[in-house]
Amino acid sequence: MSDAPVPADGDYMRRVRESVAGQRVLSMIGARLVHVGPGEVDLEFDHHPNLTQQHGFIHAGILSTVLDSACGYAAYSIMPADAGVLTIEFKINLLSPARGGRFVARGRVTKPGRIITVADGTLVSVNADGEKWIATMTGTLMMVRNREEVRG
Amino acid sequence: MSDAPVPADGDYMRRVRESVAGQRVLSMIGARLVHVGPGEVDLEFDHHPNLTQQHGFIHAGILSTVLDSACGYAAYSIMPADAGVLTIEFKINLLSPARGGRFVARGRVTKPGRIITVADGTLVSVNADGEKWIATMTGTLMMVRNREEVRG
Amino acid sequence: MSDAPVPADGDYMRRVRESVAGQRVLSMIGARLVHVGPGEVDLEFDHHPNLTQQHGFIHAGILSTVLDSACGYAAYSIMPADAGVLTIEFKINLLSPARGGRFVARGRVTKPGRIITVADGTLVSVNADGEKWIATMTGTLMMVRNREEVRG
Amino acid sequence: MSDAPVPADGDYMRRVRESVAGQRVLSMIGARLVHVGPGEVDLEFDHHPNLTQQHGFIHAGILSTVLDSACGYAAYSIMPADAGVLTIEFKINLLSPARGGRFVARGRVTKPGRIITVADGTLVSVNADGEKWIATMTGTLMMVRNREEVRG
Repeated sequence: MSDAPVPADGDYMRRVRESVAGQRVLSMIGARLVHVGPGEVDLEFDHHPNLTQQHGFIHAGILSTVLDSACGYAAYSIMPADAGVLTIEFKINLLSPARGGRFVARGRVTKPGRIITVADGTLVSVNADGEKWIATMTGTLMMVRNREEVRG
Repeated sequence: MSDAPVPADGDYMRRVRESVAGQRVLSMIGARLVHVGPGEVDLEFDHHPNLTQQHGFIHAGILSTVLDSACGYAAYSIMPADAGVLTIEFKINLLSPARGGRFVARGRVTKPGRIITVADGTLVSVNADGEKWIATMTGTLMMVRNREEVRG
Repeated sequence: MSDAPVPADGDYMRRVRESVAGQRVLSMIGARLVHVGPGEVDLEFDHHPNLTQQHGFIHAGILSTVLDSACGYAAYSIMPADAGVLTIEFKINLLSPARGGRFVARGRVTKPGRIITVADGTLVSVNADGEKWIATMTGTLMMVRNREEVRG
Repeated sequence: MSDAPVPADGDYMRRVRESVAGQRVLSMIGARLVHVGPGEVDLEFDHHPNLTQQHGFIHAGILSTVLDSACGYAAYSIMPADAGVLTIEFKINLLSPARGGRFVARGRVTKPGRIITVADGTLVSVNADGEKWIATMTGTLMMVRNREEVRG
């Protein structure tokens, strides 16, 4: 229904991988890039006590960190090779406590734009019973060029 | 103009301090509790390479983590002694790149409620020239009782 | 993946229809209820000059009005017969200018809850070429009982 | 603390007044422009049954309409004479039911930017006892030039 995201640069997978590798906060969290497609990025991470609030659930801010990176790189994947991406704002809704094993954050471009791109993300926990929705995000990303403060 | 927040429990400062101490993610970030008042909580932290995205700025998700805790504890400070607080959702706007030294996140209750409390937060960087706005947050918090998934 | 919404009251369609009929703002906008299902409500309306900003597009606030009602009634459809629903907050992203003929707002429950329900909405324009995404919304709704300020 | 908004065009008051006059939806609602300053716009309107949901309170979408216009024109007031303003997204929190007489929506620029401007708005009801907070908004606005879909 919406415009399908199309990569502007054939080498986008390499660019995304390199930029993800440069996000030191993702290393601290232990997040891994597990999927890249045009307008699509999935990041995965495991429960760790360092990431929790006082009841042992993953803190909403850590969920936000991984979801924001997934949404930001989903937008970045369809940008020109010399572009960078900035998060302007995002909103997250927490649907269930983030307990247990493994988490997957999926960022998807909803509306690609010349300057502004909108992406939506979902974060699920994964266990033997399947997936459970933990959080959803909507983020607004801006393409920047030739600026110091770019991500990408 | 709005209803002024009033603590429901005289011992609220101790409760906030103990609960903050139990948020392991705040230890990982190096965040310190520097102010507690009725409906008011400030948390402070320093720049560290582990908290950055690929250009050396603090990641939006880390700003969210500290702002969400400041807003959540601001709400928690005016709740009854047996209550816990859950973040339902929040929105963050990133105003300037989070470069440099020291950051202060200030959470303030905008509208206390029986079940739902709204809090607003601002995050500033602090240097010799003064303060600079980095991010603003609006969050919706829910009071919970006798539930496993409480914060507090 | 998420919990499928289930109506708590077999007579939910009648309740939704009656409550929609009581929203005078929907009459002013000319919005019609065109679909009700468990956790699902669609509202439709036509372009009218009275609903526009200065360039002839439908104002973002009018899109919000219809989307918020669609999301609110989607939540209301799965609540007990004596419940009412309140909007706590929502966020809307404007994806394309709202020009042209007919618009459909679709509200869907993302996460039903005992007190708090999260719903997502999409608003499309419809013409001979098909549908075009105009806006997306995420809203947080609260169930209330025995209170004056209920919707429903 | 933040950068103080400065008008880029000395004739900004006239531009704001003319553009507000062209928003037909504001006429339908009965909203009046009551204050314009650099980065500041206030709009006022009265309770009317046509604006209500089924319990006689002003619908959240109508509050959104007036707040979004106040925030958008606050941003517009500091833009160059040939610019227009587009709302990218906003979030609104409903703090109290919008009952009674007269309402004032105040839009204020929080962070002016070359392309992206962030504005915050508050909506209060006014009666003999003073003001009561009804809703708060954070909105993200984009400056556009030479484009058909501009507001302004």
